[in-house]
Amino acid sequence: MDRIKLIIEFDGAAFCGWQVQDGVRTVQQEIELALARQLGSPVRLHSSGRTDSGVHARGMVAHFDSCRNLPLKAYREGLNRLLPPDVAILFAERVSDDFHARYSATGKWYRYLIWNSPVRSPLQDQRVWHLKGPLNLELMQQASKSLVGRHDFAAFRAAGCEAKTTVREIYRLEVTREQQLLLIDVYGSGFLQNMVRIIAGTLVEVGQGKRSPDSLADLLAGGDRDAAGVTAPGAGLCLMEVFYS
Amino acid sequence: MDRIKLIIEFDGAAFCGWQVQDGVRTVQQEIELALARQLGSPVRLHSSGRTDSGVHARGMVAHFDSCRNLPLKAYREGLNRLLPPDVAILFAERVSDDFHARYSATGKWYRYLIWNSPVRSPLQDQRVWHLKGPLNLELMQQASKSLVGRHDFAAFRAAGCEAKTTVREIYRLEVTREQQLLLIDVYGSGFLQNMVRIIAGTLVEVGQGKRSPDSLADLLAGGDRDAAGVTAPGAGLCLMEVFYS
Repeated sequence: MDRIKLIIEFDGAAFCGWQVQDGVRTVQQEIELALARQLGSPVRLHSSGRTDSGVHARGMVAHFDSCRNLPLKAYREGLNRLLPPDVAILFAERVSDDFHARYSATGKWYRYLIWNSPVRSPLQDQRVWHLKGPLNLELMQQASKSLVGRHDFAAFRAAGCEAKTTVREIYRLEVTREQQLLLIDVYGSGFLQNMVRIIAGTLVEVGQGKRSPDSLADLLAGGDRDAAGVTAPGAGLCLMEVFYS
Repeated sequence: MDRIKLIIEFDGAAFCGWQVQDGVRTVQQEIELALARQLGSPVRLHSSGRTDSGVHARGMVAHFDSCRNLPLKAYREGLNRLLPPDVAILFAERVSDDFHARYSATGKWYRYLIWNSPVRSPLQDQRVWHLKGPLNLELMQQASKSLVGRHDFAAFRAAGCEAKTTVREIYRLEVTREQQLLLIDVYGSGFLQNMVRIIAGTLVEVGQGKRSPDSLADLLAGGDRDAAGVTAPGAGLCLMEVFYS
């Protein structure tokens, strides 16, 4: 038996997220279908985590066990021929039996994109959150500092999030601007459901002058989801990379 | 009467090019429909030129005459609310009656994008020409030098091109690489039908080692379309800017 690790890129616009669900199109389902055709029997794919509807990935990681000993290019070139244009296998490698895409992960890098311009951009449509009004970058950068480190992120998770513990560590959080594009890069040990999107939504409210940069420390301390900002749209989010030691 | 100049961005993936044609979806048609709704009467839009099916634009220019004296934001914000997500008006301004989007143009900047990687990129799909094999950037840069200047570009035009003269001037032609992305930027006085796409296709054949960098001077001198390279796919092309003096 071979355990295979895949690195996957997908455009999330036409997907109802990663995880298989009845009656809707998901990334996991597309890859499992292609794998079943390639291997001639059903395969269960285990990912580093779910992604929400509309969210993109440049470096989603998943693994599966193959009963057949195929050359690695069967899992990259072979699968890419079977997969639709909005999903592709970037890389495939054999890993040891104790590798697990989710439990072996030591960290993740997410990027959130904001198109900050009076006019929407057709060439960025479904890739960004479009915000017309001015955003104060310096205030957002200042606010982001409170979030770096090990904290209880209970205020930054979806109502339905079922994680047992809400303590997570953010290694790095950078807010930068490239002309009309505002980038929020978040590197962390792990993330609660919607955590990056709620961080983005809260930082935007700081940039709009609706809340002070200092208020984020209180938000963390309070642990109250309703006190944090809006959940930014899924389209702006991209899972860039998953780290393994 | 007001003459209005528009700068337009569109994602060409779902359009059969710019120009109105029966039975297919075109950018001109979408904007003319939105303008007719805004102004309450039919409007004819004049562009800086046509674009082919699948070609994108960040800076297409068009003008029209409005019988109504509306504030400029009616032509930007107003139209953008009526237009579909894959087309938007970036800018609108009043211009003098002798301005013509096509005849007043003094130059254009086109960018051609190649995704040069063993694996296709779902996030770049319909925006690039995907080429798996290695491309020699230095050879392509060397070849591009022959095309700069005033030349007869008869070898670099579509079979059906109806231009009366085939002499054009290329001001600048740059081939650069950003990781897997190869960019061909062409600035010129004007372009024949498919000219940039045939230039891209010919430079790629140089990069693949199929023709020598020196052969481009002979190609220009010969004026034979069949001697030049393939017409690169429309999806990789983007009209970046139209210049006016």
